Amino acid sequence: MDYYSINGVANGYSLPGDTAGKVIKCKAAVAYGPGQPLIVEEILVHPPKPMEVRIKILFTSICHSDLSAWKGENEAQQVYPRIFGHEASGLIESVGEGVTDMKAGDHVVPIFNGECRKCDYCKSKFTNLCERYRVNPFKSVMTNDGKTRFSTKDGKPIYHFLNTSTFSEYTVVDSACVVKIDADAPLKKMTLLSCGVSTGLGAVWNTADVEAGATVAVFGLGAVGLAVVEGARARGASKIIGVDINSDKRFKGEAIGITDFVNPRDLDKPVHQKIREMTGGGGVHYSFECAGNLDVLREAFLSTHDGWGLTVILGIHPSPRLLPLHPMELFDGRRIIGSVFGDFKGKSQLPYFAKQCMSGVVKLDEFITHELPFNNINQAFQLLIDGKSLRCLLHLV
Amino acid sequence: MDYYSINGVANGYSLPGDTAGKVIKCKAAVAYGPGQPLIVEEILVHPPKPMEVRIKILFTSICHSDLSAWKGENEAQQVYPRIFGHEASGLIESVGEGVTDMKAGDHVVPIFNGECRKCDYCKSKFTNLCERYRVNPFKSVMTNDGKTRFSTKDGKPIYHFLNTSTFSEYTVVDSACVVKIDADAPLKKMTLLSCGVSTGLGAVWNTADVEAGATVAVFGLGAVGLAVVEGARARGASKIIGVDINSDKRFKGEAIGITDFVNPRDLDKPVHQKIREMTGGGGVHYSFECAGNLDVLREAFLSTHDGWGLTVILGIHPSPRLLPLHPMELFDGRRIIGSVFGDFKGKSQLPYFAKQCMSGVVKLDEFITHELPFNNINQAFQLLIDGKSLRCLLHLV
Repeated sequence: MDYYSINGVANGYSLPGDTAGKVIKCKAAVAYGPGQPLIVEEILVHPPKPMEVRIKILFTSICHSDLSAWKGENEAQQVYPRIFGHEASGLIESVGEGVTDMKAGDHVVPIFNGECRKCDYCKSKFTNLCERYRVNPFKSVMTNDGKTRFSTKDGKPIYHFLNTSTFSEYTVVDSACVVKIDADAPLKKMTLLSCGVSTGLGAVWNTADVEAGATVAVFGLGAVGLAVVEGARARGASKIIGVDINSDKRFKGEAIGITDFVNPRDLDKPVHQKIREMTGGGGVHYSFECAGNLDVLREAFLSTHDGWGLTVILGIHPSPRLLPLHPMELFDGRRIIGSVFGDFKGKSQLPYFAKQCMSGVVKLDEFITHELPFNNINQAFQLLIDGKSLRCLLHLV
Repeated sequence: MDYYSINGVANGYSLPGDTAGKVIKCKAAVAYGPGQPLIVEEILVHPPKPMEVRIKILFTSICHSDLSAWKGENEAQQVYPRIFGHEASGLIESVGEGVTDMKAGDHVVPIFNGECRKCDYCKSKFTNLCERYRVNPFKSVMTNDGKTRFSTKDGKPIYHFLNTSTFSEYTVVDSACVVKIDADAPLKKMTLLSCGVSTGLGAVWNTADVEAGATVAVFGLGAVGLAVVEGARARGASKIIGVDINSDKRFKGEAIGITDFVNPRDLDKPVHQKIREMTGGGGVHYSFECAGNLDVLREAFLSTHDGWGLTVILGIHPSPRLLPLHPMELFDGRRIIGSVFGDFKGKSQLPYFAKQCMSGVVKLDEFITHELPFNNINQAFQLLIDGKSLRCLLHLV
């Protein structure tokens, strides 16, 4: 059986020899405790079980959710040792029993928010939260048997993260959590579709469904926020106000599409007041909260126009604080809604989204700011912590 | 000029002689302080100014917002003396300069949430909050000149309430806050369209847009809650669960259309858990919070199905407490939204809604539980306080 697929070769990527059904020994970046440097070491990756696939990861990057989980800050269950990572691209190495929509060599991106396509949720047009494979920060084992597919060389389990665990040369995921994409798609950039870009862009296109001419404010210009900017630009928003406490974000924001920039620390009034002034007194049609901060969330909410303003929450809020809104404030006609993975149904919709990225409808050039070998993963974490990188692409090949 | 209009006579109602342009001396129920019995006494009602109309009120009823304002509990600005009341029907007595869509004798219902039909809000399909005449609990004078049209017999101002002040034989309101309805419509029942029934029914039809077969939970079976039930019944909801801590509400609920009743005090588990069990484990498609209580609001929210559940807030929440929801809970796909006046654009849409009530699409028979002479208004307040009445119709003729 030849695992050097034509597809793989087309992009210059290839699979090793006959590994299907066997345990693979490979490198992974293992977390042993909150905030501790990841250890890049050899681990064992077991074969996929029914309806699972094993992926050879080619590229992975780091998202703020990885950072928060690594720090032990967010809602993710803290079990160690564990392999983080959920933004990646790669090739199918082998498939488990029953998987018919993918085969070895296929180009894929893992998705932390899966789609089984069979449950009531997947069949509903209203949600992208699959009954079994939706994003679940408390899950650390495979759905099939409650066990891990990773182990140390002496057989101790290494736990999974967010349905994906991509900080590894090989990973095993449920087939519901993998999207096959066009073999011509540039895998480096496709890595971004695994999380950040889909989350931000989808929030604009699917959740808010922003129309041409609309006004938009984006709170937090990290990768997700900038993906919101890109989505709004692609939709023809007439005004895209970027808000960040780091003024350096202005330049990247402008390169992508913000028309205005506001640093709340430079103001002598609340941001929402400034934004209302910038929009004829009323406020923007849509605001996007990508900062994971409740005070920012309130400003985002109040920045929208009464009567029809919509605030979309994308940021992860680790604080136990409740929504800083009074119920009567909802009577002013402002709405607020959460968005997971940009309301994309991954398996159904990402292949077309990938084509839109390839054809230039969506521009991804500005998002990968750094590239490093996989061994330097701790350095990549530091770049994100220091606010220096948007996405640092780690090369596993 | 003959003010005994044909329309008026058709229903057996009539106007007095030539009062246009003159000060009218008539009876009103005046509030002199929070919680104090209303004093039914003679007051002066001045002629309408430009774009205002003077209405001869025939029927009025009492809504919980009147009750809360009277008690001084809610957000309404406390100014005295004041004339409460916002649910009513009557005849146009005279119109101010510039009013062309109504004339003396027309059958009308006042609306506390007006519609000027000219502002950006009125022109938007997304909101029913008029720029100038939307519901405003802080307003106690006319928009035109910041003055009152009511005074005591010795000329001291008596203040307005919610754009309407219907506890008076005559009232002056902005023409934006009056809806002309079919002269054949039974004015007694049309009183209900001024607030409660429109608020509840509209929340189902306009805000939530409930579809046939949907499942619904209604928290609080007062007049607004029961109007929600009626709206859900008329839309063909497959399950309508009424929730109230007063088990007597079950009977009225069933008469209108609930299929199930839950009294939270009879349960050994949270209501939302019970409701999920009653709906195959998932929860209802839509819940409506008509109790004005934040703990109830949280139960209503959690009673809906994740992925697509929608909670509509109708209750007035006087507590300064914030929304008891964590932002991450919005990531489960449950949505929450406020609804004012059932998202009806009053002047544009109530005339047709009145026809639907007349033709039997909407049934109003169960809502008027008591009728009393206007002089007995304090008795009517007590009936509502004691939970004995839904709507007690006060006759001013």
